[in-house]
Amino acid sequence: MASYTLLKTDGRARRGRFETVHGTIETPVFMNVGTVAAIKGAVSADDLELIDTQVMLCNTYHLHVRTGDELIKKLGGLNTFTSWKGPILTDSGGFQVYSLSSLRNITEEGVSFRSHIDGHKIFMGPEESIQIQSNLASTIAMAFDECPNALADREYVERSVERTERWLVRCIEKMKVLNSLDDTVNRQQLLFGINQGAVFDDIRVKNARKIRELDLDGYAIGGLAVGETHEQMYHVLDVTVPELPQDKPIYLMGVGTPDNIVEAVYRGVDFFDCVYPSRNARHGQLYTHFGKLNLKNKAFETDMRPIEEGCACPACRRYSRAYIRHLLKAGEMLGLRLCVTHNLYFYNHLMCEIREALDEGKYGEFRKDFLDNYLNKGEG
Amino acid sequence: MASYTLLKTDGRARRGRFETVHGTIETPVFMNVGTVAAIKGAVSADDLELIDTQVMLCNTYHLHVRTGDELIKKLGGLNTFTSWKGPILTDSGGFQVYSLSSLRNITEEGVSFRSHIDGHKIFMGPEESIQIQSNLASTIAMAFDECPNALADREYVERSVERTERWLVRCIEKMKVLNSLDDTVNRQQLLFGINQGAVFDDIRVKNARKIRELDLDGYAIGGLAVGETHEQMYHVLDVTVPELPQDKPIYLMGVGTPDNIVEAVYRGVDFFDCVYPSRNARHGQLYTHFGKLNLKNKAFETDMRPIEEGCACPACRRYSRAYIRHLLKAGEMLGLRLCVTHNLYFYNHLMCEIREALDEGKYGEFRKDFLDNYLNKGEG
Repeated sequence: MASYTLLKTDGRARRGRFETVHGTIETPVFMNVGTVAAIKGAVSADDLELIDTQVMLCNTYHLHVRTGDELIKKLGGLNTFTSWKGPILTDSGGFQVYSLSSLRNITEEGVSFRSHIDGHKIFMGPEESIQIQSNLASTIAMAFDECPNALADREYVERSVERTERWLVRCIEKMKVLNSLDDTVNRQQLLFGINQGAVFDDIRVKNARKIRELDLDGYAIGGLAVGETHEQMYHVLDVTVPELPQDKPIYLMGVGTPDNIVEAVYRGVDFFDCVYPSRNARHGQLYTHFGKLNLKNKAFETDMRPIEEGCACPACRRYSRAYIRHLLKAGEMLGLRLCVTHNLYFYNHLMCEIREALDEGKYGEFRKDFLDNYLNKGEG
Repeated sequence: MASYTLLKTDGRARRGRFETVHGTIETPVFMNVGTVAAIKGAVSADDLELIDTQVMLCNTYHLHVRTGDELIKKLGGLNTFTSWKGPILTDSGGFQVYSLSSLRNITEEGVSFRSHIDGHKIFMGPEESIQIQSNLASTIAMAFDECPNALADREYVERSVERTERWLVRCIEKMKVLNSLDDTVNRQQLLFGINQGAVFDDIRVKNARKIRELDLDGYAIGGLAVGETHEQMYHVLDVTVPELPQDKPIYLMGVGTPDNIVEAVYRGVDFFDCVYPSRNARHGQLYTHFGKLNLKNKAFETDMRPIEEGCACPACRRYSRAYIRHLLKAGEMLGLRLCVTHNLYFYNHLMCEIREALDEGKYGEFRKDFLDNYLNKGEG
């Protein structure tokens, strides 16, 4: 069974350790998104080890509609299938159901929708989502929730959150059954519940108080980074995080920019994931401690320095801005791979720096210095 | 300066060693094609070292029209630019001029054509090609030649080969000048001449006898694998190779399949290059000692074996057919990268096996066994 150990606090910021059947996760942690059981940009499991990845995140919906969770179960689950040995978190599929499918119908039972690949009809409710995640045999499964539109009105959000609460109870029941079956690949699969409530403080708090009674393995805050301002997001964290159990990890879903992460750690968050590092890499946007730089700019044409001086990632250890820019301009896949590698390393390494600052009890100082450099300096 | 040492012969097959300013090349060797200064499929210079690549081949035409050879010279030449430390061979650009540009005009001076990227007019003759290759600072430059259409008539081929002979003299002159200049990056750049003559024995032989007098650093056989049968290709080698200097490396351009290579080594060839390993990888076609297998076949959906049992490449050491098939089906770049890595390793390792057989004086046996397995066994 999993156990979360709170090693140290610094204000609300938490330095922790989460033990799982697939290895120990040092928190705060940034999970690297491998949508269909692979990181975009030809990054391999060997590469992930080189860039200090702790957790890979895979998408339940994508793996269900393509290749299929039953096949992956037959092949021994995601760890065996991908050869990635460390912890894997699967999302519930809910977010993709809402964002990728145009035709969907939500009832108390769950959601009917059409596959974005071939249009065939799929039904997914709490039991189906947990069954798929059990087949995938991830380390951590996420509860099936509805993520209401950021602009949804109060009445809709209230009803949606209440339904998600009922779905959570069904997720817990289903997982209990599956984890007791002999032919389940990972019988120690963990379940995280998800707090929702858009930007309505009272709905968030009421929901947090309700789900904290359910003794889940961890608690996520969902429905942020979907259109609200950064200030609104930070405010939701300010009111919600203190309402969640402090002896369990807290996961802010889909967030975010480096400054978002530094601010959210400050507010007590332990787990993060985001597609920014890989998505921005695709556009030649590279992260450095002095802000982002756009490698496609002409200025870098003859720049033989690494993406960031002093960075120890596999891209910076060997390749220049000029060469990587050439690869991007020529449409060579290697360019994308080097950019994704650097960006993921930047995020993973940022979490190392955060953990070190927490270990040393200097998070306030770190936060100030990091944000000063990151937000206020020009292109490297 | 370069030196070729013939270590051992077995019939016409040659085991040799070619010393260059960028390192020693053990021959027979297969050069890995990195068209625009990178191997297709996100394969990095680090990967090339892992798969025992000896020589990278880059395309003069592609690098001239995109990014530009003058820029690469300014940045220290291809080795510095790409961070690949070993030998690099550049082609002359001629082949791309003939195959990629629709509008071109050949005169005694050279070829006028339009860039396939933006349509701007370019002129390339022997001096221009050698100048570009000198700027790129490759280890080995190729002479600028015309590669006549495989179906060209005898009269055209005769005139073309005579012109290519005159161009070769101009290439030698130009390189002599460039290698003597202070600001030339690689003043020890080597030049290989190219034998042409389509499938006309007498033209091939006459040309070989003429160019062997020019004391080049190596000799290539061009204009094969462009539409003629394998038997015609082998016949050209049978009549041409003995006419080339035996104290210089012999390079069969653009060839070929594993069986082509085994047969050409048998006929005295030392250097090879071909896009098959990477191009076939793109279609899920993987090389094994028992023939090619098509990983997209349904049969491999649940096959947890590596691409080839016993293969020590980075793809086979860690990933299964089922997983790589999943990646290819899902359009994940990692699938392509793993396939290219395997195929290039297969070719590089085939050359190791060939060299070992030659070292042991057992090439006849090796050739028979290899072809028996490769051509006659079914999908692995």
